[in-house]
Amino acid sequence: MAPRNPCFSNLAAGYLFPEVAKRRREFAAKHPEAKIISLGIGNTTEPIPPSICEALSASAVELGTKKGYSGYGDEQGKLELRKAISIGWYGGLVRDDEVFVSDGAKCDLGRLALLFGPGVSVAVQDPAYPVYVDSSVMLGQAGGKEESSGAYRGLTYMACRPENGFFPDLGKLSKTDLIYFCSPNNPTGAVATRAQLQSLVDFARKNRSIILFDAAYAGYIRDQDLPRSIFEIDGAREVAIEINSFSKYIGFTGVRLGWSVVPAELAFDDGTSVRQDWNRVNTTIFNGASNIAQAGGLAMFTMTGKEEMRGLIGFYLENASLIRDALRSAGFETWGGDNAPYVWARVNGKTSWQSFEDILDRANIVTTPGSGFGSAGEGFLRFSAFGHREDILEACGRLKGM
Amino acid sequence: MAPRNPCFSNLAAGYLFPEVAKRRREFAAKHPEAKIISLGIGNTTEPIPPSICEALSASAVELGTKKGYSGYGDEQGKLELRKAISIGWYGGLVRDDEVFVSDGAKCDLGRLALLFGPGVSVAVQDPAYPVYVDSSVMLGQAGGKEESSGAYRGLTYMACRPENGFFPDLGKLSKTDLIYFCSPNNPTGAVATRAQLQSLVDFARKNRSIILFDAAYAGYIRDQDLPRSIFEIDGAREVAIEINSFSKYIGFTGVRLGWSVVPAELAFDDGTSVRQDWNRVNTTIFNGASNIAQAGGLAMFTMTGKEEMRGLIGFYLENASLIRDALRSAGFETWGGDNAPYVWARVNGKTSWQSFEDILDRANIVTTPGSGFGSAGEGFLRFSAFGHREDILEACGRLKGM
Repeated sequence: MAPRNPCFSNLAAGYLFPEVAKRRREFAAKHPEAKIISLGIGNTTEPIPPSICEALSASAVELGTKKGYSGYGDEQGKLELRKAISIGWYGGLVRDDEVFVSDGAKCDLGRLALLFGPGVSVAVQDPAYPVYVDSSVMLGQAGGKEESSGAYRGLTYMACRPENGFFPDLGKLSKTDLIYFCSPNNPTGAVATRAQLQSLVDFARKNRSIILFDAAYAGYIRDQDLPRSIFEIDGAREVAIEINSFSKYIGFTGVRLGWSVVPAELAFDDGTSVRQDWNRVNTTIFNGASNIAQAGGLAMFTMTGKEEMRGLIGFYLENASLIRDALRSAGFETWGGDNAPYVWARVNGKTSWQSFEDILDRANIVTTPGSGFGSAGEGFLRFSAFGHREDILEACGRLKGM
Repeated sequence: MAPRNPCFSNLAAGYLFPEVAKRRREFAAKHPEAKIISLGIGNTTEPIPPSICEALSASAVELGTKKGYSGYGDEQGKLELRKAISIGWYGGLVRDDEVFVSDGAKCDLGRLALLFGPGVSVAVQDPAYPVYVDSSVMLGQAGGKEESSGAYRGLTYMACRPENGFFPDLGKLSKTDLIYFCSPNNPTGAVATRAQLQSLVDFARKNRSIILFDAAYAGYIRDQDLPRSIFEIDGAREVAIEINSFSKYIGFTGVRLGWSVVPAELAFDDGTSVRQDWNRVNTTIFNGASNIAQAGGLAMFTMTGKEEMRGLIGFYLENASLIRDALRSAGFETWGGDNAPYVWARVNGKTSWQSFEDILDRANIVTTPGSGFGSAGEGFLRFSAFGHREDILEACGRLKGM
């Protein structure tokens, strides 16, 4: 038969979250009486706020009318939405024709990797959202896993640990073509400071690297001094692509809506415009985000929508604060949870998966093992702040009682 | 800077439909008084039928309630929808765990190409939907364009012309790893018979090829003798993947919903399950279709939904019939339009683009140049049957008067 993509044999076993879900199912089957609470996958739990929900349903209703019906839209997204993102999110720092609306950050990451082909060298934070690594492997930008270290061959891992303030030691890094960077970070909850991001941009300019900046949690930044976009940093327009998402801001995880920003100045080594190729990818193997989802996203930029978004983010940040306090009471050392919906906790004397099983067993709480995000995540667990308040309070009580 | 994906430099100028849109805009700017009618891109124009529209808006409303809210769903799609497709579309010919719900056929084609890596050999019908070729080029499965022929190096073009009944001469074809095949065909409107598809499946089995069968217009087949799925053909489960879409059945072009079927038996040459890798692609760089869109898709399988779908398809097929009659009156030789929403017309003494300009100029009608679908489409135009009835009638009048 037709041959398999040889890169796929390099991929290690299941993607992290399906594996977590499988272990949860197995536990539930063995303990049908257990009331399991998930602080695992970062899946939103609260209803979509009223005015945004109203925009979604109004858009659906309109599609049933001759006047309001629309078919294919621009693959890059509705112009009003691109404008709203340009002005409402970035305050004009980026132009509307640099914004590409998508069906979510995960999907955009898969398509973005395609821009660079199999020959590029890639650096990722360690720990990191697994999609950066897995999509690189799928496209041949990394090789197979080394048995001993668990690292993919050819990838550069930038360790981000408490000891370095979760920011890579750039002085020790060699040049790579691409640098994936996520702030506020999934999974550690760390947020890079302006000075740190400036050093990252300077590093990329010096090394002629492109930064794929994942800002999907930027809306969680409350501290006014912390940058919410890579494009607040001098020189970033020449070296950075930003990815963002409505998922965690207005409960759109299931609705599917995100965006990317590719500045006009950004070019490959041969001078070709990156935006031009990105446009080609979007028009060729993507067909735009759902028009209903886009109508909802647009509503986020109204006065009411912005307030609702702030309320929802505030709710999850309160959850994060409760979880962090409970973990600290239980003796865990923690990070994150201030400007991010994730709390990162060190587990002493156990591996991440052992601790995952232990907490599932003793407290019936699902977490995410830090080692699933990379070897520098070994010995940590990620706690997600997405949950109903009553579940979070119940989980906090159980954690304190462990 | 980081290098460009070298495959991208092999891609010829703009994707077809943006080019058509650009020429339309230029014409409109020069002739602001002209009432342009588009029979170009296959973009649905009629409202989403009532019960399906109701399901969409009800789903959006539910997302605003604590009880009805849902976040991430399974990347493969809601189980009810996979079951509905398995039973309601295929009558049980395929199982629900072989169905993967997507955000549309175009997006699925981009992801499917990734399954096979850069080394595979690819055959496409000529003319063909440009995405098959462009995604193959992006992934390195084809090389640059030959100046003289306009063909991409390494691709096998299976000419489909009136002379061979729009079905490739399989006896003259050499083995390739992948065969893209679309029936009902976009752009020619030709529908392969059961015997033709049996010969295609036999050819694939003999040559150990995988068929990527695009059935996005299968709902338009009215003739009971014509197969609506490749899986109606003996042996297809060992050699075929099917792609389908809600876009043209219930006006979902903007809503974004489709599906693929990968049979459990299908394997690569090393024995690995294709479905397993497809699942990995879907869970790693895709995050499921919009939950609202899926609720709408599910409504298509109710009694009322099915009737509404048949009504909408019937409407567009009537349009096709009107267009075909008008073209014949105007002296064009035509094909298709019986079991497909496209009419394929031969233009004598002109190239496709010349005729495109001519009809735009004289009748203010936008068409799609056949040559945009491949060199065997040169000398033809595609007329899309998607339009309001009054526009179709007006266009038909203009065509007759040319």
